[in-house]
Amino acid sequence: MHFMIKKLYEMITKPTLLLDVKKCKTNIANMCVKTKTHNIDLRPHFKTHQSLEIGQWFKDIGISKITVSSLEMADYFAKEWNDITVAFPINILEVDTINKLAEKITLNILIESKETVSFLNNNLKSKVNFLIKINIGNNRAGLLPSNIEQIEDIIKTSETSNKLHFIGFLGHAGHTYKCRNKATVLQIHKEAKDKIVSLKDKFRVQYPNIIASYGDTPSCSIAEDFSGIDEIRPGNYVFYDLMQYQIGACDIKDIAVAMACPIVAIHKDINEMVIYGGGIHFSKDNIIENGKTIYGKIAKKESYGWSNLIPNMNVRGLSQEHGIISVPDSEIDNYKIGNIIYVLPVHSCMTANLMKNYLTTEGKTIKMFNSSN
Amino acid sequence: MHFMIKKLYEMITKPTLLLDVKKCKTNIANMCVKTKTHNIDLRPHFKTHQSLEIGQWFKDIGISKITVSSLEMADYFAKEWNDITVAFPINILEVDTINKLAEKITLNILIESKETVSFLNNNLKSKVNFLIKINIGNNRAGLLPSNIEQIEDIIKTSETSNKLHFIGFLGHAGHTYKCRNKATVLQIHKEAKDKIVSLKDKFRVQYPNIIASYGDTPSCSIAEDFSGIDEIRPGNYVFYDLMQYQIGACDIKDIAVAMACPIVAIHKDINEMVIYGGGIHFSKDNIIENGKTIYGKIAKKESYGWSNLIPNMNVRGLSQEHGIISVPDSEIDNYKIGNIIYVLPVHSCMTANLMKNYLTTEGKTIKMFNSSN
Repeated sequence: MHFMIKKLYEMITKPTLLLDVKKCKTNIANMCVKTKTHNIDLRPHFKTHQSLEIGQWFKDIGISKITVSSLEMADYFAKEWNDITVAFPINILEVDTINKLAEKITLNILIESKETVSFLNNNLKSKVNFLIKINIGNNRAGLLPSNIEQIEDIIKTSETSNKLHFIGFLGHAGHTYKCRNKATVLQIHKEAKDKIVSLKDKFRVQYPNIIASYGDTPSCSIAEDFSGIDEIRPGNYVFYDLMQYQIGACDIKDIAVAMACPIVAIHKDINEMVIYGGGIHFSKDNIIENGKTIYGKIAKKESYGWSNLIPNMNVRGLSQEHGIISVPDSEIDNYKIGNIIYVLPVHSCMTANLMKNYLTTEGKTIKMFNSSN
Repeated sequence: MHFMIKKLYEMITKPTLLLDVKKCKTNIANMCVKTKTHNIDLRPHFKTHQSLEIGQWFKDIGISKITVSSLEMADYFAKEWNDITVAFPINILEVDTINKLAEKITLNILIESKETVSFLNNNLKSKVNFLIKINIGNNRAGLLPSNIEQIEDIIKTSETSNKLHFIGFLGHAGHTYKCRNKATVLQIHKEAKDKIVSLKDKFRVQYPNIIASYGDTPSCSIAEDFSGIDEIRPGNYVFYDLMQYQIGACDIKDIAVAMACPIVAIHKDINEMVIYGGGIHFSKDNIIENGKTIYGKIAKKESYGWSNLIPNMNVRGLSQEHGIISVPDSEIDNYKIGNIIYVLPVHSCMTANLMKNYLTTEGKTIKMFNSSN
């Protein structure tokens, strides 16, 4: 083990996204167990890890259907998955990709307008399932659940062709990301779940097989009442991150990715260090803690990876390539230029998307969608 | 021309970074003329466009030396450029790349500690020029100009070997990015310039050939007094963006890039549209306008590209792939699902870094560093 870690350190010369496989597989397993306990389907969102190889770890424990956020990501995963939901209002300009995918896999898309249905009625070549996107409080996309007329219009229009097949309603309670404690997450969860379940119940009279698809990592991690929900689609839980920790959706020990960054300057007079690792590596997502903006926190390096946070040691600023670390008095003498520190990211989805590769704590490179090498 | 534009529209099915070559070349030319007028050197920062092909447009008007933000970017540009400054505190873990580059080109690096000098004295294989990074008010990296003892120590230590060659001081007045009018930019410029010029003057007694390297896009665009400065290194001016516009560094007509994004949903009841184009395309850099957070603004499409902003039509939110557009009453009926809108980005450096390719308004693809295809 010691030999492996020495090798790992030697491999890192610039910002590198480390993956603790054990933590990651535990997160994957825990959500799977939870959905089995509640007797609901799990259709994990793969936009966080974006990797066929990590996807295999879900397959290994019986997951057979997934969610992605774009058609090009669906195309990447269609190499190994044959039931994919694209959880994004379908982009009709990519109809060629839709047709290519629909020929090969069970493709489920989101629709929220009659115009889109009409276009697809005329342009689809194979059968495509659709869910109607419902705005369950997040106010980003989707129809309000009260908008029965438009919902019926979409379904009716779809029935004029044999290409589009209505399979249910999909909602995303993304407003849980603004919560900073479990109680408010649970309050949003209750309201959001009730909205989509009521709507499904109403339409099940006429369409008995439709589903309610729900889920964001905070509510799926914290809630225990999924009554009426048929499937959940959390994604971020595969890695978690500091934002999820602040929300109350995970513990620090659950965070499965860390950025390894070289120290390039140390300013003892102002208790700061500069690392190679900036906005093009982490993204600029941030959390506020005691009024201060934080872009990452430093974890203690261990032989097997990393353990707890080092108190009060935070990324206080990011520019394109620079990260500025606030370092407490008790820590400042422990570092030298050329050392590597481990930074837990604020938003692992965005960080992974930028990094394009993982290095496991065992020293193995894992590629992802759009890996550059 | 009309035929070309029709072709351009047909090429766009997903978020695409459009480049108006004419605007871009005008920006490139204007800064070049300005530096010639002031008789200072221009060493443009290529971290914004990150493209050999765009770099050629600088060569065409006589630019012979450049700035980059990482050694891997230096390695990319070293194919065609032989005098490169890496404007980032040098990362000693990449000494192999440093040696590889130094063998082939004039490589200028930034140093701000004696420890780094000692390491390089022992590990460099060829001559490398260095500038001492000075903190001229930005408080990100560098030594304070008052820290004469440490500066002398760095220079003295470098003289114990024949590898490192001290060529001057480098400062970046990046705190101009927090300004929101020209007067405050000019105030910062004056203070920052005085700091680095005074330091250079002090050390020129002993090192008569050293330079003061300075420059950020706001001050280089707005200021007219560069007395004592030897070279400037602005980068963002190649494209500009909404942040530079808000700072007062450019006009809207100068912004040379726009994101073309498909409309995927229209919510007339709340005056909003959803576009395909999110944080993984734009980055989440934002500006505040009348208390509202804005991630982009919509420009009017023209046969040649785009013209003015459409008033009050802004990107009000971004998630991973979604952009939410606030649309005024007067505009909401002008759009259909599947239309493309042009969004001027808040921070073109970050947007270009994410997009990895440009499509010119003439329909030509331009690759950049790390282009994925």
